[in-house]
Amino acid sequence: MHETYDNEIKSSRPATRHTRLGIVGGGQLAKMTALAALQLGCDVVVLEKNNYSPAAQLATHSLVGDWNDPEALVKLASQVDVVSIENEFINADALAAIENCGHLLYPGTATLRRVQDKFIQKQTFLEAGLSTPKFTAVRDVQELSRAGNDFGWPVVLKTRRNGYDGKGNFTVRSESEISQGWEALGGPKNNELYVEAFCPYVSELAVIVVRSRDGASVVYPVVETVQRNHICHMVKAPAVVPRELAEEAASLARRAIDAIAGVGSFGVEMFLTREGQVLLNELAPRVHNSGHYTIEACVCSQFENHVRAVLGWPLGSVAMRAPAAVMVNLLGVGKGPGTPRGLERALGVAGAHVHIYGKAMSGAGRKMGHVTALGQNLAEAEAIAQKAAECILFGAKS
Amino acid sequence: MHETYDNEIKSSRPATRHTRLGIVGGGQLAKMTALAALQLGCDVVVLEKNNYSPAAQLATHSLVGDWNDPEALVKLASQVDVVSIENEFINADALAAIENCGHLLYPGTATLRRVQDKFIQKQTFLEAGLSTPKFTAVRDVQELSRAGNDFGWPVVLKTRRNGYDGKGNFTVRSESEISQGWEALGGPKNNELYVEAFCPYVSELAVIVVRSRDGASVVYPVVETVQRNHICHMVKAPAVVPRELAEEAASLARRAIDAIAGVGSFGVEMFLTREGQVLLNELAPRVHNSGHYTIEACVCSQFENHVRAVLGWPLGSVAMRAPAAVMVNLLGVGKGPGTPRGLERALGVAGAHVHIYGKAMSGAGRKMGHVTALGQNLAEAEAIAQKAAECILFGAKS
Repeated sequence: MHETYDNEIKSSRPATRHTRLGIVGGGQLAKMTALAALQLGCDVVVLEKNNYSPAAQLATHSLVGDWNDPEALVKLASQVDVVSIENEFINADALAAIENCGHLLYPGTATLRRVQDKFIQKQTFLEAGLSTPKFTAVRDVQELSRAGNDFGWPVVLKTRRNGYDGKGNFTVRSESEISQGWEALGGPKNNELYVEAFCPYVSELAVIVVRSRDGASVVYPVVETVQRNHICHMVKAPAVVPRELAEEAASLARRAIDAIAGVGSFGVEMFLTREGQVLLNELAPRVHNSGHYTIEACVCSQFENHVRAVLGWPLGSVAMRAPAAVMVNLLGVGKGPGTPRGLERALGVAGAHVHIYGKAMSGAGRKMGHVTALGQNLAEAEAIAQKAAECILFGAKS
Repeated sequence: MHETYDNEIKSSRPATRHTRLGIVGGGQLAKMTALAALQLGCDVVVLEKNNYSPAAQLATHSLVGDWNDPEALVKLASQVDVVSIENEFINADALAAIENCGHLLYPGTATLRRVQDKFIQKQTFLEAGLSTPKFTAVRDVQELSRAGNDFGWPVVLKTRRNGYDGKGNFTVRSESEISQGWEALGGPKNNELYVEAFCPYVSELAVIVVRSRDGASVVYPVVETVQRNHICHMVKAPAVVPRELAEEAASLARRAIDAIAGVGSFGVEMFLTREGQVLLNELAPRVHNSGHYTIEACVCSQFENHVRAVLGWPLGSVAMRAPAAVMVNLLGVGKGPGTPRGLERALGVAGAHVHIYGKAMSGAGRKMGHVTALGQNLAEAEAIAQKAAECILFGAKS
């Protein structure tokens, strides 16, 4: 007996060449996308910094390299039919090398350039006539002061790029906090800031939109997302809002993805204001945490639909298969191994669908897995999901 | 950039050691089991004759070797927490090496020895007081003649080992066909034959039973299997039978798995006779084609429950999530590549869940994938599944 590995996929498959999907990034989003692609008979090639990422573990083939290295990206593209991405932080200039070599990249760099800079993203929404909180770019504290006096305090100061899970945001409550906020986000070193009117929302809504290469799109149910410490804690599907409001949110989300000409699954986050207005917050050009519930709760998941969209295949039904679903994230409480404690007890909770991402390490606030439960109503689903989630612990408090 | 591979999983995962499942065999059953294990955060190591089997493609680690080589089996076992199998033909004596080295194998060889020889399997049922068609071992044509006159013609002559999908079976209609049947199954060279009374059934029923290490078991709904040319063509869940009869079938199946002290998922096939009697036909010590529908139709699939059972974790709910489900197999029509034609059209059928196994080659009658659809009733589910299945073609007629 000897061990062999799929080093050269072109030679290892006599006669047959399966459809090949390339994914830049190897985290849980890439893993769940890969699981969907594998079920459809595709080969999956993952590019990640190491070979033990969640997605690299199950990829047909794994490339180790830097996401932002055009050479690595083109090497990935040359081995697959279509390249997709699992996060929005990959340098669009680097990714352009894929398109420049004639390979397919979805979403493409034209879309990513309209999304990665959140100021440009918001301008794109504005130009498309879509409702967002007021915003403006600010180059110095004087401009920030002016914006605050214009919008009314508080305002939210944000980095234009690379913010996530509350990182890159600072709420400036009054004129006196201006320099504190400016310093917190990199101050004079960082001239890529913008400011938004603070939106006193009653809840945060989110929608997954999947748009195909030919521009057709499907919109999953509008969900409510519940954050804890700026990180998504729970998703309730569908959101308990009047039907007209859900339709408005769905339409807003669909038009947002049309505005950026997106191809694939996109997470669109919105605010529901006290006045019952829906405002676009921001979008992610990828499958999204607010859509993990679709694996069990919808006929076709956001992951399978992403695969279908980027490969040019027909989109699947986004209908829910139960009246309600709740997803709870499993976040690390501190540093430690990526293997959960309490999994057995969680599996003993009837109706809980447990997903463990298989990361090498846990970290405080790091997304390590999630639990989804379906129910006749949200309360029932939430009770099951919470009960299972509470059994599981990643890492130890330091 | 360089490429690295998961050659030595022990060193590639800093700090973390995920639970590891080993599977002997790399076909579609191993693939679907691996998908369930990966979702639960397990690592999967597959032993198969080549490294491009459906399961080897997505395994964390792949060993290339012979299933029946004790050295290969022990090497697999030494890398994982528990070994399971995807088919019933692996030599039990070879597998015993895993247990003899102190590693965990589920189902174990004690179970497999009671199953692999179908004559012993039937004797085990008989001793447990479970209903089966009449049967007896036959060493020569005289004994076959005697059995036929005893049971009444026709009778079914079967090989005791390695039969599947109609291979290793011959229906002897009358005394005059004895020598023809005897020759067809290997004649004088094969002294491992037995004979069964022909069962004029009205339908074939099947049940998946999952039994945990501590002997607790769960039983999935009773389904009807429809064969074409002795190969499973369609599965209808649940079977349209009176409730008492379904309960009888479920009880019979559960007791059959108790009788062999099985651990894991098992497929139990039964005949429903004209008189409304349920008789055990045979069982498979593994996840089973008649349970593929459980991926979408049940809260916890036969694959996830197999993983849970063999790892000693609590079993999940077997409840159906829709009133009806139908699964249709995608069989190759001839030799050709393992990539389907018509997949796009199939994906355009709303509600069809398409599974493509990713085999290297198609062959006539070879299981290349399947389609499952749920519905408010069987007719609705069958229409969707059939419509999608008819779009897909593997291989060409020669």
